[in-house]
Amino acid sequence: MDTGGMAWLLISAALVLLMTPGLAFFYGGMVKEKSVISMMMLSFGSMGLVIVLWILYGHSMSAVSGESFFQFAGNPFEDFAMTSLVDDNEGLAGSAFGATFAIITTALVSGAIADRAKFSSWMIFAGVFATLVYFPVAAWVWGGGWIMQLGEAMGFEGIEVIDYAGGTAVHINAGAAALALAIVLGRRHGFEKGILKPHNVPLVLIGTALLWFGWFGFNVGAEGTANLIEGVPGLIFINTMAAPAAGILGWILIERIRNGRPTSIGAASGAIAGLVAITPACAVLTPGWALLLGFVSGVLCCLAVELKFKLGFDDSLDVVGLHLVGGLIGSIFPGLFAFETGLFTGGDASQLLVQVIASVAVLVYSFVVSFVVASVIQKTVGFRIRHEDEVAGVDVVVHGETGYALAR
Amino acid sequence: MDTGGMAWLLISAALVLLMTPGLAFFYGGMVKEKSVISMMMLSFGSMGLVIVLWILYGHSMSAVSGESFFQFAGNPFEDFAMTSLVDDNEGLAGSAFGATFAIITTALVSGAIADRAKFSSWMIFAGVFATLVYFPVAAWVWGGGWIMQLGEAMGFEGIEVIDYAGGTAVHINAGAAALALAIVLGRRHGFEKGILKPHNVPLVLIGTALLWFGWFGFNVGAEGTANLIEGVPGLIFINTMAAPAAGILGWILIERIRNGRPTSIGAASGAIAGLVAITPACAVLTPGWALLLGFVSGVLCCLAVELKFKLGFDDSLDVVGLHLVGGLIGSIFPGLFAFETGLFTGGDASQLLVQVIASVAVLVYSFVVSFVVASVIQKTVGFRIRHEDEVAGVDVVVHGETGYALAR
Amino acid sequence: MDTGGMAWLLISAALVLLMTPGLAFFYGGMVKEKSVISMMMLSFGSMGLVIVLWILYGHSMSAVSGESFFQFAGNPFEDFAMTSLVDDNEGLAGSAFGATFAIITTALVSGAIADRAKFSSWMIFAGVFATLVYFPVAAWVWGGGWIMQLGEAMGFEGIEVIDYAGGTAVHINAGAAALALAIVLGRRHGFEKGILKPHNVPLVLIGTALLWFGWFGFNVGAEGTANLIEGVPGLIFINTMAAPAAGILGWILIERIRNGRPTSIGAASGAIAGLVAITPACAVLTPGWALLLGFVSGVLCCLAVELKFKLGFDDSLDVVGLHLVGGLIGSIFPGLFAFETGLFTGGDASQLLVQVIASVAVLVYSFVVSFVVASVIQKTVGFRIRHEDEVAGVDVVVHGETGYALAR
Repeated sequence: MDTGGMAWLLISAALVLLMTPGLAFFYGGMVKEKSVISMMMLSFGSMGLVIVLWILYGHSMSAVSGESFFQFAGNPFEDFAMTSLVDDNEGLAGSAFGATFAIITTALVSGAIADRAKFSSWMIFAGVFATLVYFPVAAWVWGGGWIMQLGEAMGFEGIEVIDYAGGTAVHINAGAAALALAIVLGRRHGFEKGILKPHNVPLVLIGTALLWFGWFGFNVGAEGTANLIEGVPGLIFINTMAAPAAGILGWILIERIRNGRPTSIGAASGAIAGLVAITPACAVLTPGWALLLGFVSGVLCCLAVELKFKLGFDDSLDVVGLHLVGGLIGSIFPGLFAFETGLFTGGDASQLLVQVIASVAVLVYSFVVSFVVASVIQKTVGFRIRHEDEVAGVDVVVHGETGYALAR
Repeated sequence: MDTGGMAWLLISAALVLLMTPGLAFFYGGMVKEKSVISMMMLSFGSMGLVIVLWILYGHSMSAVSGESFFQFAGNPFEDFAMTSLVDDNEGLAGSAFGATFAIITTALVSGAIADRAKFSSWMIFAGVFATLVYFPVAAWVWGGGWIMQLGEAMGFEGIEVIDYAGGTAVHINAGAAALALAIVLGRRHGFEKGILKPHNVPLVLIGTALLWFGWFGFNVGAEGTANLIEGVPGLIFINTMAAPAAGILGWILIERIRNGRPTSIGAASGAIAGLVAITPACAVLTPGWALLLGFVSGVLCCLAVELKFKLGFDDSLDVVGLHLVGGLIGSIFPGLFAFETGLFTGGDASQLLVQVIASVAVLVYSFVVSFVVASVIQKTVGFRIRHEDEVAGVDVVVHGETGYALAR
Repeated sequence: MDTGGMAWLLISAALVLLMTPGLAFFYGGMVKEKSVISMMMLSFGSMGLVIVLWILYGHSMSAVSGESFFQFAGNPFEDFAMTSLVDDNEGLAGSAFGATFAIITTALVSGAIADRAKFSSWMIFAGVFATLVYFPVAAWVWGGGWIMQLGEAMGFEGIEVIDYAGGTAVHINAGAAALALAIVLGRRHGFEKGILKPHNVPLVLIGTALLWFGWFGFNVGAEGTANLIEGVPGLIFINTMAAPAAGILGWILIERIRNGRPTSIGAASGAIAGLVAITPACAVLTPGWALLLGFVSGVLCCLAVELKFKLGFDDSLDVVGLHLVGGLIGSIFPGLFAFETGLFTGGDASQLLVQVIASVAVLVYSFVVSFVVASVIQKTVGFRIRHEDEVAGVDVVVHGETGYALAR
């Protein structure tokens, strides 16, 4: 790595770290006024906790030796508290970048449990989720684990699972866990009456802006280590503009067709849908295909967020509709349209097959573990606050604070 | 380009992209509570649309072959959807940077039409403005077109139009279009009663902060491609601090003299006035001259924003007063004080002359085309919402949303 | 310096500049609704003024020739308005970076005087503080002055004061000045009744996010000049994640133990406490020690912010509790635990001794000068607004503005 690559890696890590506060604002603005503190604390608490766990043992767990096909994760005590990395400048910078992905993935899950979660129980869940789900899955997808080896193990020459920046490890992972939590915690009081109005739309858009800005670190970051000139950072960058732009247009077009009113929450959601979908595929599509992927993701996610009302699970802020659905779209799309290896772009079905296997595996694993962990928490210390506390407002009851003190 | 240059170019493009949400907050906080969604959507909608248009054909239009003196623009179908750029990493990164200028210029125009524009009509205008005005003007100023060739064509040896980062192509351009739209859409209900109070000052300052932060990408960005060491990025950077700082002091000094009360909106506006003015001149002034330019721009723009009341056009958020006036100040100033070529710094009037011609040409072209396009939209599908909808609030009528749901 | 180093230096300077608006939001959200404009203007006004002073003479004052042991500061007129730097690209970039530290240090002080300061008097104080305190202290600590020479002057071989990014020059300095101002201006009306509720918690957290984001420029920035590969930017970066993360956990743990309710303001404050403490020590601790330092700082600062009620000084937004206490913790800690030279890590007491001398010297100097200057302002033009104006609200009285115009 040279100094230009190091500069890019450092700023990328800072950008991705900024995404978690961005998420706190995106989520925080969407909930009721009396839940804004709680919603933001689920993200800020995750930041505090997951960074500490990453430094202590998460970085060790997120890579395996790669000698055998399946290993659950790396040995957490191999490099406890990063002691051996102290003289490895590049290793520390790369590990800081990796930490930011663990944080945002964990924080994303919290969108499912707005208005009704105990903060302390969330912190337990977040720690266990990072340890048992995120760190191992990161090892599988990027750390030499079985998903990285899948194409070769299946005998598909030159085929590797395409998950550039986290369609499976981040978005499908978070979306599946969110679905599990939404089921375990149950529906909010008043859920049947339809979507609640966001209490602060500018805050949602501030969050959206920081998320998009940070996503350039997320997607283009890894390319910095050695490939700023030889690699494709320019392509990844423009695709990270293209897909969310088309996602905005796709989402608000559906809104306009349905009821004549394109919304700002729709524009924000469309941008995120496009960003989620381009994440795994950002390095293997031309800008034109990225526009199509973003548009498709905007349209389909706009339709998918209605599912929760039909199926009756209260994924409050649409982690499933955006991150699970968008993550699946983005992970399957390269199976169809990736340079050379996609089903419709010169390849055969092998790329598509490994994409599906990786996606389903992470989905099922994350859902099952999250469901079990959340259920245990709910049955023991309790995960959901009491009904009367939910009516009074989670902020006052759990945090003793109110979001605003404005003259009325 | 080496890796350091590429790292700087990538982060610069991300910074400039962040300016458009920044503008959405700067504008959104200034309007009435019942227009904040609409105001922000004019910017976010522009982001979605202009990125798509840029990728499809805008980048092709923004450069000409340069063989003949006047060409309107590049052939839009020359490299449709950037197909030929797919293997050109530097080209894609540079084009992503270029896209961000097209977005912010278009979004800037929307400040003229607060509280009273149909979103769908704005989207039509934005697409046509980008296509017929921004893309060609960018080709004239930076893409080898007639403004780049002007000094030579007039026989002025060694003289080129100085428009480093967009005094003509961005600020005069947006300001002139804003004036046209303000005239076509007419005055808001209650305009005569004076300036409306911003509904959310912290939001205005969040926008200001993101704009200033992003402006380092805007001004210093282009210098990254090959010149981080040989060039003058340090000079441009410090000038991009100097002028807005002096602009703040200039603006609030005038306020203090006039009525004893320096305002936060004045400080924010002064910073923007300084940033606009330094934009074209950032590479050709010493920090001391940049302080003077920023101070002058803060003072003059503070006086200029009153013009709309005297002349009776409702440029709601002062795009004319800040961007047209500030852009003219910044574009003419180097004609007087640029290193070596300014009228008062060792040169003759030739630099001044080309600066004036370029500024006036862009001003007139942008105004005329914008006026015609907006008039056609107004006469056909309608650009302005109905009076009763304006009173009810554009957010609810057009977007079906309200900015806030706070307990009253 | 190569292009990668220059890219990092430029983005670092932009990041640190963003910290001052971040501080404006962190402070602004904490005060009453009727003081938010005033609070943010204390920071934005400082940005305008200190940048101008830095360019005019501050950069000249912030370095001494180093020939004699004690020099007050550099000659302010040595390079007035940076004239001699115009062709020195690296010098200008480095000086821009230096300017951002002067701005944030000055702005930090304003947290002590919420709700009750005249803006014009603050601007006088800010200018004098930058000139008589910050610029000289920066010369002492980083510009070749006596604190840099202290270890050698005391005959401690190989021992230098460790103040990597500003424990003494920034945080102890600002905290001591804040204490002086809190005493001179006196307590707010209603101070005895306890902590006032923040009027806008999301704004506080937006500020926190921007501060943390910018802090990567603050701490890792200086390492960019020549050492991105040979140096320890990766270590500094991860320590700048570790300490605030542990600070969050430390602070909210104390809150949970005390009254069962971890707060969002506590999480934000814990992050800042960790960031302050790691600032001087970021390059000389392993990530494990950084976690410990952050945790300790979170716990101790949480306890320290109560001091103002016991001792009766109204340091409104806890500049003393966070920056003076956190700065002392961070400055003393390396005396105990720095690689090789700490008391408990293989060294003797010499490192600890120079750390204490430097900390106390800056504390005393900053307190005394600030106390005198503020007292003179208070006795002449007046620093504090009238009681009836404080009750009416400083925003309306001083700035003629209100923070919000929301339907009630």
